[in-house]
Amino acid sequence: MLLQHPWVELRELYAFSQVGKHASELYPALDCDMIYKSYNGETESDIYFLALPHGEALQLVPALLQAGKSVIDLSGDFRLKSVIEHEQFYQQTKSPEAVMTYGMPELFGNEIKSVKAISNPGCFATSIILGAAPLLLGSERSLKVQAINCTSTSGISGAGRSSKTELSFSEMSENVRAYKVGVHQHTPEIMQALGTSATTPSFDFTFTPMIGALVRGIYSILHIQLDKPADREEIKQLYRKFYRNAPFVRVCENMTEVKHVYRTNRCDIHIAHTGRSGSLVIVTAIDNLLKGAAGQAVQNMNIMLGIDETTGLS
Amino acid sequence: MLLQHPWVELRELYAFSQVGKHASELYPALDCDMIYKSYNGETESDIYFLALPHGEALQLVPALLQAGKSVIDLSGDFRLKSVIEHEQFYQQTKSPEAVMTYGMPELFGNEIKSVKAISNPGCFATSIILGAAPLLLGSERSLKVQAINCTSTSGISGAGRSSKTELSFSEMSENVRAYKVGVHQHTPEIMQALGTSATTPSFDFTFTPMIGALVRGIYSILHIQLDKPADREEIKQLYRKFYRNAPFVRVCENMTEVKHVYRTNRCDIHIAHTGRSGSLVIVTAIDNLLKGAAGQAVQNMNIMLGIDETTGLS
Amino acid sequence: MLLQHPWVELRELYAFSQVGKHASELYPALDCDMIYKSYNGETESDIYFLALPHGEALQLVPALLQAGKSVIDLSGDFRLKSVIEHEQFYQQTKSPEAVMTYGMPELFGNEIKSVKAISNPGCFATSIILGAAPLLLGSERSLKVQAINCTSTSGISGAGRSSKTELSFSEMSENVRAYKVGVHQHTPEIMQALGTSATTPSFDFTFTPMIGALVRGIYSILHIQLDKPADREEIKQLYRKFYRNAPFVRVCENMTEVKHVYRTNRCDIHIAHTGRSGSLVIVTAIDNLLKGAAGQAVQNMNIMLGIDETTGLS
Amino acid sequence: MLLQHPWVELRELYAFSQVGKHASELYPALDCDMIYKSYNGETESDIYFLALPHGEALQLVPALLQAGKSVIDLSGDFRLKSVIEHEQFYQQTKSPEAVMTYGMPELFGNEIKSVKAISNPGCFATSIILGAAPLLLGSERSLKVQAINCTSTSGISGAGRSSKTELSFSEMSENVRAYKVGVHQHTPEIMQALGTSATTPSFDFTFTPMIGALVRGIYSILHIQLDKPADREEIKQLYRKFYRNAPFVRVCENMTEVKHVYRTNRCDIHIAHTGRSGSLVIVTAIDNLLKGAAGQAVQNMNIMLGIDETTGLS
Repeated sequence: MLLQHPWVELRELYAFSQVGKHASELYPALDCDMIYKSYNGETESDIYFLALPHGEALQLVPALLQAGKSVIDLSGDFRLKSVIEHEQFYQQTKSPEAVMTYGMPELFGNEIKSVKAISNPGCFATSIILGAAPLLLGSERSLKVQAINCTSTSGISGAGRSSKTELSFSEMSENVRAYKVGVHQHTPEIMQALGTSATTPSFDFTFTPMIGALVRGIYSILHIQLDKPADREEIKQLYRKFYRNAPFVRVCENMTEVKHVYRTNRCDIHIAHTGRSGSLVIVTAIDNLLKGAAGQAVQNMNIMLGIDETTGLS
Repeated sequence: MLLQHPWVELRELYAFSQVGKHASELYPALDCDMIYKSYNGETESDIYFLALPHGEALQLVPALLQAGKSVIDLSGDFRLKSVIEHEQFYQQTKSPEAVMTYGMPELFGNEIKSVKAISNPGCFATSIILGAAPLLLGSERSLKVQAINCTSTSGISGAGRSSKTELSFSEMSENVRAYKVGVHQHTPEIMQALGTSATTPSFDFTFTPMIGALVRGIYSILHIQLDKPADREEIKQLYRKFYRNAPFVRVCENMTEVKHVYRTNRCDIHIAHTGRSGSLVIVTAIDNLLKGAAGQAVQNMNIMLGIDETTGLS
Repeated sequence: MLLQHPWVELRELYAFSQVGKHASELYPALDCDMIYKSYNGETESDIYFLALPHGEALQLVPALLQAGKSVIDLSGDFRLKSVIEHEQFYQQTKSPEAVMTYGMPELFGNEIKSVKAISNPGCFATSIILGAAPLLLGSERSLKVQAINCTSTSGISGAGRSSKTELSFSEMSENVRAYKVGVHQHTPEIMQALGTSATTPSFDFTFTPMIGALVRGIYSILHIQLDKPADREEIKQLYRKFYRNAPFVRVCENMTEVKHVYRTNRCDIHIAHTGRSGSLVIVTAIDNLLKGAAGQAVQNMNIMLGIDETTGLS
Repeated sequence: MLLQHPWVELRELYAFSQVGKHASELYPALDCDMIYKSYNGETESDIYFLALPHGEALQLVPALLQAGKSVIDLSGDFRLKSVIEHEQFYQQTKSPEAVMTYGMPELFGNEIKSVKAISNPGCFATSIILGAAPLLLGSERSLKVQAINCTSTSGISGAGRSSKTELSFSEMSENVRAYKVGVHQHTPEIMQALGTSATTPSFDFTFTPMIGALVRGIYSILHIQLDKPADREEIKQLYRKFYRNAPFVRVCENMTEVKHVYRTNRCDIHIAHTGRSGSLVIVTAIDNLLKGAAGQAVQNMNIMLGIDETTGLS
């Protein structure tokens, strides 16, 4: 994406284990002769994208910021304001200062414009926050969210370029598997972005992540309990209003599918059902590698640079 | 399955549109030279399996029962006691007498032993009922179910041998799609089997069915709200006790997967999470074509015949 | 592709059965509000892309050409110079004038520059012709091709947006199937483009097409019999020289894969093996919907327009 | 398969890296509480199945045979009579005595009956040998095979229970990849079984193995060059006669597919095409884990035991 972005010159690629290899050797689909280097503290570029194992960015970022560089970090290191929740969900301690602006443009676009450090949201978190935000953050909301039960199906690429047996084709073809039920590390950032916290939540939240037999995509089913029955059409208008300036969010008339957002930076949202007891079902779809990761990172960069947020993304 | 069953002689195959074709012509994987016939009211066999479009069995069954035949019907025609709910969910009227014993051996095994007509459960219904029954029907239960939010992923074979564009490989590979959110016709039979009803439910129930990029299997995530926090170990023991005589149900220590029940008549159940607010997550897996359809039908036949219920199924 | 092409304004979409529908209704992944119209002989646009059932373009094209329009036809109607072969492989008669320039830019780029009517190659044909052309058309070739035995695996999208049962997910997941062995209609255009003919071939050619469990892509294995043993390195240089000005063809050091050309207009070619008896194995990969169809059509349009042939394609 | 075989009592499971684990821990789909042990030279069982990395069986087998045990080895260690070819294709030396009866019942059934040591054929080899044998070994053959160009697509399970990145779902979904073109180690056993040798072949043989986006199955396309044109019906009769006593081989009227032999021990063969220049295309399908490995091993065991060769396999 950066290679084709009209305002970006890709200067360096850094790696740990793949140092010395050509980009096109690791990714033959890519026409790119750049060679992965070892990172030794260089600060020649203007913007640094970090996609490191959890904990590593905590070490590298301070020097980059001190050198006046812009940073977009794709790990969980700088997402949580609560060091207690960070420790609970990442099994790592960090200092209270290790927090960056949460890079979800549809919610925090104004803040993103004016900062030099962005913590890019998690993939599941993106699909769930965007599906619930209008109900919890919308200025005209009149319904109270009592509980959200969310089941999300992720493509297998969400686990990275892995060589684990349980992610092999033989294991995952014709399969579905839940994992980390109720304890996934995206839980606290979801609650934080929605204006509450995992520690003292203002509504019950239970999250079941799954991986399915697909490479890309996240499909989230939000079963939401409201304090009173809602009208489907009103909910739709609430969502449309909330996202009226969001170029990548579509509030769809028809059921959304992973296929509809494949290889796009979009988040499709469908108001699927309202029940007489106050139940509400919202379905969202994103491409986990784009709106759920690299695409959103570029969107954040665009906003930081003051250029059209869709540049290089359509 | 019937061809290999030691106590069954398969006498006739009937069909509508495929009359005159050999079984092995339609299903080359099968070594079977039988020819599909048109059904003209014959009553030479002892047991009749019906797998017809909804509404058709209502016409055929009375004559079979009058002739003293045993019937196992795989449609939804005879599942619901409430003619109102039947009309609401199937858009068809039926008489109040059009009800058969609900063929879920783990719940109604004693009744199945003594009847000649069985209504075989729906595939989604099987995976959900078995996942919730111990909490609602177990003799030693002490927790009250307040709500169940269920998301189920089905293999595409659940839609039958279809030629619909939306079920083509090109549409469904790398895809997931929800449908009939909150209004699926298996809803009332689930409520009925769990001792309540869709019309006047004793707990909130919202159900989101999905199809994923797999041929066989149903994977259900039950997000259950209890009246108070539960202990995971106690829930497990409650389930183990409830299913202690059920040869096809496994209450598993580890996360269950569709792959683990593929081409078996089993239902695997895993107690995945209990939360401090009374939330409980149950995960179940079945093969939709076996425990969710034909396998359960044979299991019912075995019980009706008074032979070991696992005969021909392992 | 045309929506994003910098030099194209998409004016109209025509259809048969889908008249009146929005493009985004049929293809929700697309952000396009255009409505499919019925074609009534309009000639307002400059260039017409035709993707019609075989035989239909034969009727429509003459009027378009007479009106001075440019035409790129994706059917087989205008590919073959031999009306006898056309009748044999398409079961249709046509007049000897119904021939257009064969739109394979790597072979016939000069001719494409100066014409107004292009017959876009078939998908299998593209992958096979590009894999064999340097041996048969290269100016410095010194080896004689005695036989080509080709096996090609196509993604299922090659069959169009189909609702056939045999292309359903349930049938094609975990499957591979050969069809039209030795009689596929791309045979004569392959022979014609390689400088010979299906009727009086200068080498034996046998072609087995297959569809596999993938949506997009064509992977062709060419088993070529030469008159004498060849050196792999020399073959590679022959290919590199032949394609030195072809921006979309890569002669790869390592084995090519469908994944490497996915969603690109490239053709990857790998010289896989040379045997002591004169055998040679060439492997090629394309995306059947791009280099095998729409991408090559746009490449042809670019050449016809005199602009860079990669415009809108990278 | 052994657990359900009526004449077998499974006594022990041995392993290297998985010692101490329950079978059902590694294979949750399996209801088997047996624990993998380390092998220390025990000889309590009657028959030993070996599925070891190449070279390991060469060490273990002599002691087992000396102890009077029957052995069925699934590696390549004992397949080749030529120690030169063994060294060339396996990069290992072995003694000329290290040869066992080649366990392909359709060709060597009589010999299998009377021996205690069987070398079970390779999966690709099985699908190719069965597809060509009637032409080369049939008593009534009148056509001379000049060349065989074979392309085989294998399911990914052929690579074992692997954790290699290139076999991950993310890499292999929507992909096809050739490998070891012209140099696969099954080449010499194919030639040997067909009555010739890789070193001094009586016909040209070139083999391109591929893996596709499926778990199980091998689909082989044999492009055969005969000395003169053949009649398709005569070829079919030649094949039918050759396999008239082979319960697992079907010579099919219609195109065979991987799906048709899925989870069976069958080999389906279809005579797909005969050309005027003497070309002949044969298509075969097997399940690589059954007829291509474990199923054929059980078939061999049955023959060695003197019981019906289909026991436990249908």
